[in-house]
Amino acid sequence: MRAASLPRNSWVDHALHTPDARRRRHRAIGCLLSLNAAAIGAPAFVSAAAPAPPPRESPEVVATRLRDAALAGHTLAYEWVGELTTRFGPRPAGSTNEHQAAEWAAARFRELGFENVAVQSFPVTAWVRGTESGEITSPSVQPLVIAALGESPPTPLAGLEGEVALFPSFDALKAAPPGSLAGKVAMVTRRMVRTQDGAGYGAAVVARADGPGEAERRGALAFLVRSVGTDSHRLAHTGATRYVGGRVPVPSFALSNPDADQIERLASLGKPVRVRLFSSASYVQDARSQNVIAEVRGRERPEEIVLLGAHMDSWDQGTGAIDDGTGMAIIVAAAKLIRDVPHRPRRTVRVVLFGSEEVTQPAPPGGAFGGHAYVDGHRSELSTHVLAGESDTGADRVYRVGLPQAVLASDFARTALRVLMPVGVIGAAYPPTEAGTDVGPSVEAGVPPFTLSQDASRYFEIHHTADDTLDKIDRAQLDQNVAAWAALVWLAADSDVDFRARPGTAPQEPLR
Amino acid sequence: MRAASLPRNSWVDHALHTPDARRRRHRAIGCLLSLNAAAIGAPAFVSAAAPAPPPRESPEVVATRLRDAALAGHTLAYEWVGELTTRFGPRPAGSTNEHQAAEWAAARFRELGFENVAVQSFPVTAWVRGTESGEITSPSVQPLVIAALGESPPTPLAGLEGEVALFPSFDALKAAPPGSLAGKVAMVTRRMVRTQDGAGYGAAVVARADGPGEAERRGALAFLVRSVGTDSHRLAHTGATRYVGGRVPVPSFALSNPDADQIERLASLGKPVRVRLFSSASYVQDARSQNVIAEVRGRERPEEIVLLGAHMDSWDQGTGAIDDGTGMAIIVAAAKLIRDVPHRPRRTVRVVLFGSEEVTQPAPPGGAFGGHAYVDGHRSELSTHVLAGESDTGADRVYRVGLPQAVLASDFARTALRVLMPVGVIGAAYPPTEAGTDVGPSVEAGVPPFTLSQDASRYFEIHHTADDTLDKIDRAQLDQNVAAWAALVWLAADSDVDFRARPGTAPQEPLR
Repeated sequence: MRAASLPRNSWVDHALHTPDARRRRHRAIGCLLSLNAAAIGAPAFVSAAAPAPPPRESPEVVATRLRDAALAGHTLAYEWVGELTTRFGPRPAGSTNEHQAAEWAAARFRELGFENVAVQSFPVTAWVRGTESGEITSPSVQPLVIAALGESPPTPLAGLEGEVALFPSFDALKAAPPGSLAGKVAMVTRRMVRTQDGAGYGAAVVARADGPGEAERRGALAFLVRSVGTDSHRLAHTGATRYVGGRVPVPSFALSNPDADQIERLASLGKPVRVRLFSSASYVQDARSQNVIAEVRGRERPEEIVLLGAHMDSWDQGTGAIDDGTGMAIIVAAAKLIRDVPHRPRRTVRVVLFGSEEVTQPAPPGGAFGGHAYVDGHRSELSTHVLAGESDTGADRVYRVGLPQAVLASDFARTALRVLMPVGVIGAAYPPTEAGTDVGPSVEAGVPPFTLSQDASRYFEIHHTADDTLDKIDRAQLDQNVAAWAALVWLAADSDVDFRARPGTAPQEPLR
Repeated sequence: MRAASLPRNSWVDHALHTPDARRRRHRAIGCLLSLNAAAIGAPAFVSAAAPAPPPRESPEVVATRLRDAALAGHTLAYEWVGELTTRFGPRPAGSTNEHQAAEWAAARFRELGFENVAVQSFPVTAWVRGTESGEITSPSVQPLVIAALGESPPTPLAGLEGEVALFPSFDALKAAPPGSLAGKVAMVTRRMVRTQDGAGYGAAVVARADGPGEAERRGALAFLVRSVGTDSHRLAHTGATRYVGGRVPVPSFALSNPDADQIERLASLGKPVRVRLFSSASYVQDARSQNVIAEVRGRERPEEIVLLGAHMDSWDQGTGAIDDGTGMAIIVAAAKLIRDVPHRPRRTVRVVLFGSEEVTQPAPPGGAFGGHAYVDGHRSELSTHVLAGESDTGADRVYRVGLPQAVLASDFARTALRVLMPVGVIGAAYPPTEAGTDVGPSVEAGVPPFTLSQDASRYFEIHHTADDTLDKIDRAQLDQNVAAWAALVWLAADSDVDFRARPGTAPQEPLR
């Protein structure tokens, strides 16, 4: 998961308002499909073309069975993230590891029986951490645990040194007069607040993204930010920064929370605190990243697409297990459960493993990272994308489902909640305005988003650190995610519901 | 806390059997001291020389009041460890930080009204980490989080690379034939077991201490050990290794637990795993460390000493907050509470902040680290050291008190348990055979040890890592430690109990 996108208006404002598909009545009764939960994933249960398929059951019955099969321990999700993170480790955008992992994923999709498997390549400016170090040089010499922020330029070879100027918030930094930080290292000490829905991240991350520019504008040599994370380990949380005029302004680093504490305490003793910082970060201008695309092709209206996204690239210090190995694992495992229903869903389920989600680019978005590349490469299909969702907040349980305004009070929502409530998922009172960074450009182009919100209470202890490794995954919660995704995506893909808001339709009272 | 000392026989075997002091009857009745709990630490409550001291109370009443004063939040302990770790950060043996911290501690002792404050300097071979790095080079390139083990020699400048040979235990490594590891990197993957009493550490640490020698004996280029720690963070647990013939045999590193997991999983895929390791560690042959000594001088038999130890030096990556800043804080705060009782205890309470506890030395012990230097410098006094204890397992609560065999079933033990049980301390069934590394040489020389065992369940998540910082301290538990130490040490110091076992005395049934 990357820095929260800038606030957007409701997706309604961005909708393309393509001609509405006529709403068709639910045709569940009399269908001929059936689904034997005990047989999910078993060889006998693979092909819709098998002779004499069992009688078809209602979408709700199928969704319930998919849910329960996942809950019973659908091993594919953990296998996917385990094998991916073990074989390839960190997968920075544009790296060999990211490329090799994408090839592996495409091959695995084919083995699993997905269709139209494709790798969409696109150019990026890659960023390479190199080596880095930090220390307090006065009033005593102490090592610091730091991590260069993404895209941060290197320091001079000899490093750079300066007195730290502390600001309790990003606003306080912005209130500092021009030139007031000449020769200094600007540091924002604001603590991230732990919240279930991850809102504490959005509130704190702006300092990380825009701090380098604001620091340089006031003459600072470098920028430090207290890690945007809720843990107290000596691990710094990296993350993207913003290019300003084609470059990231000054060398910029996250400090681990205990190191930020230490600098605050030292400063409170009344003596100047000086730090020395070094980074040999570099850029690769001609790198390429890629999206890996695979489908469960719909049986009736294959051109109508339910888009599921997660991202393949990761930060470089961990192995990208919860960001976003588990996101991939969840949507792949959910789609595989759907793929193995004897009769495919009416619509197509398209899974996209996006490249280059974590990094910003020197040029404004539009072909830069995977989400934009996807829109650029699939623009003609976007009007028949019926729904888009993304999994990118780790593996802890889904607790809330967000559905588009058009269906908030519909039979579809009622059915979805009947299936999801038994696994601890409640309905969001308001429609989502976005679903994540990867499907963001698609949503901006008018595709209605849905959300399956995960408990983020623990996520930001690990997010963007070296600690993002396989052992942090709670397998029972991972399975609950697969259950929620498989059930909801099946319901959407096997329906003819129009999720796009129609202009002039009065907002409906949401289900509570 | 350092590697557990090698198993020793009961302290009785090592006792010097100096002439027994005649056991004197408890003289509590009619004493003239009193202690106003509300006034502890207040200026009016400082001096035994104040005019018209209040009537003396029984040692048990005083001990109870000291206990309760500490529990109410005796701020000195947290202030001590907070100021120490903030001002000086890491304090490796022989470093400038260790020296400066020792000077600061001596000055603080004087400010607090301690007597006979002294700094005892002694020579050490210091070890300096330098920089280090590790990576998996095959089957994919991935960074490793490693930490050179203490005293480990550097690698060649270009680093060294080899295939990893995995051993599930130290015994399995020792069973490997001579020459079988030629050109390889030996790795012991045994996991440390979490236990309340820290016994899991003793069981696992032998691989860290002796692994380098056993690996080299079989031709290995280098030695890796799964961190001797119970956490799952990307932080490696360093710690001392053993010199063999005046040198540590091969470059040796701890791997963080997730990195050890990753190598195990990669190896299980069936392909060779190769790693590259680099370390620029170095030695400083002419370094000096020091013990800081301070006393609360006894009013009746000042030559009889209750020895309290903890260590000033720390590993280099954290700030030595729980290892052993809190140990120092606990014994200093307990001694300060005792010092501020209007009438001093009968015996002297001597606090020693030992230098150079964490590192081994090229020459066999005997003047090398602080505990040996203390014995060398105070040999003539050891026969009148009546009891010795050490605090070196963090700041989590004391749950058990261990007393020497001679008093296991005595009035002294009964009184101690009456005072300690209300703060959650039970009596150990068996007498301690040791009390820790720093007072180890004193105990070997015949001084009876006592123990106040701390809950070590959490300690080995942090121990010897960069995570050993101030924020890990639970202040309520720290205060409980001070309470237990102040109460028990008061009882011992204000008594005339002989804690030494007398030859021919039948073992007594311990209190349960």
